[in-house]
Amino acid sequence: MPHLVIEYTSNLENFPEAHLLDALNAAVIASGQVQNEQDLKSRTVRTEQFVIGADPTALRGFVHAELRLLAGRTPEAKRDLSDRIGAVLREFTPHPEGMLVQLSVDIVDMDRGAYYKGTL
Amino acid sequence: MPHLVIEYTSNLENFPEAHLLDALNAAVIASGQVQNEQDLKSRTVRTEQFVIGADPTALRGFVHAELRLLAGRTPEAKRDLSDRIGAVLREFTPHPEGMLVQLSVDIVDMDRGAYYKGTL
Amino acid sequence: MPHLVIEYTSNLENFPEAHLLDALNAAVIASGQVQNEQDLKSRTVRTEQFVIGADPTALRGFVHAELRLLAGRTPEAKRDLSDRIGAVLREFTPHPEGMLVQLSVDIVDMDRGAYYKGTL
Repeated sequence: MPHLVIEYTSNLENFPEAHLLDALNAAVIASGQVQNEQDLKSRTVRTEQFVIGADPTALRGFVHAELRLLAGRTPEAKRDLSDRIGAVLREFTPHPEGMLVQLSVDIVDMDRGAYYKGTL
Repeated sequence: MPHLVIEYTSNLENFPEAHLLDALNAAVIASGQVQNEQDLKSRTVRTEQFVIGADPTALRGFVHAELRLLAGRTPEAKRDLSDRIGAVLREFTPHPEGMLVQLSVDIVDMDRGAYYKGTL
Repeated sequence: MPHLVIEYTSNLENFPEAHLLDALNAAVIASGQVQNEQDLKSRTVRTEQFVIGADPTALRGFVHAELRLLAGRTPEAKRDLSDRIGAVLREFTPHPEGMLVQLSVDIVDMDRGAYYKGTL
């Protein structure tokens, strides 16, 4: 059931969406925290309109990952997932000259008692 | 104040966005958990770039709902809301031949003390 | 590390995305809750497909802000952030004649132990 959403700013040209998602899914599945590989649902969102901080002269971009998992993982397991995702972001994110690119990963618990799951 | 966001993968052709949102709002309001019908704000997001799991030969799609409510509902009320939303997703989601379509609903508490609400 | 996402409905024509983001960043940084101005990453999302409530004859729109911060702020600090953001939304949101426009701000804690942060 994990959901992974990757947002990236549109000034990161040639952002490798498909390759990044393949690598992220491999890394998250390798953690052993996904019961069935097909449960991991990952997507990218391109952000066209953004402002980072308060210095209009600075060249800045970001990539942000949010992983939503059913509650119950240990803090160590969440830290490990976050580091795995961060390492893949670092490997695949383009780095335009002179740009400060911030990478971040947020791990979010989902309410297990209220979660609905079905298939067609 | 509830917020409902429906994400769906772009391989679910002819996804009935408007009809689905109308049916979801009717189902959520019928739960009795929305004080004023106008408080329920629902939207769809079409996901063009996604990878589900780690098998590139598999035909897969998903529809994911996130309902954000002010904290304070009972676990039973959240379970009921999740099941109502799941039932509507099941009724309205197209099922392309040979595709595994995953449906999910996440119910999220919002911090009541910090929530801002206003109207123009 | 704060992340600020502003969603607005597409019936709010001439929505001032860039000016709003500049004003929001100034207001959030002025709160003293952001360690380094460059940490604040703000973006807008335009929502094209939405249904508010259950009255198809009503003219309605919304602007919704979600601010995600590392856990640890006091309830008072969160309330202050929410009010600052709400005041900026109220100042910059267009008000088409006859439309009920709902404004809202949700302040969300991020798990400090699992958060990944890096730069390129």
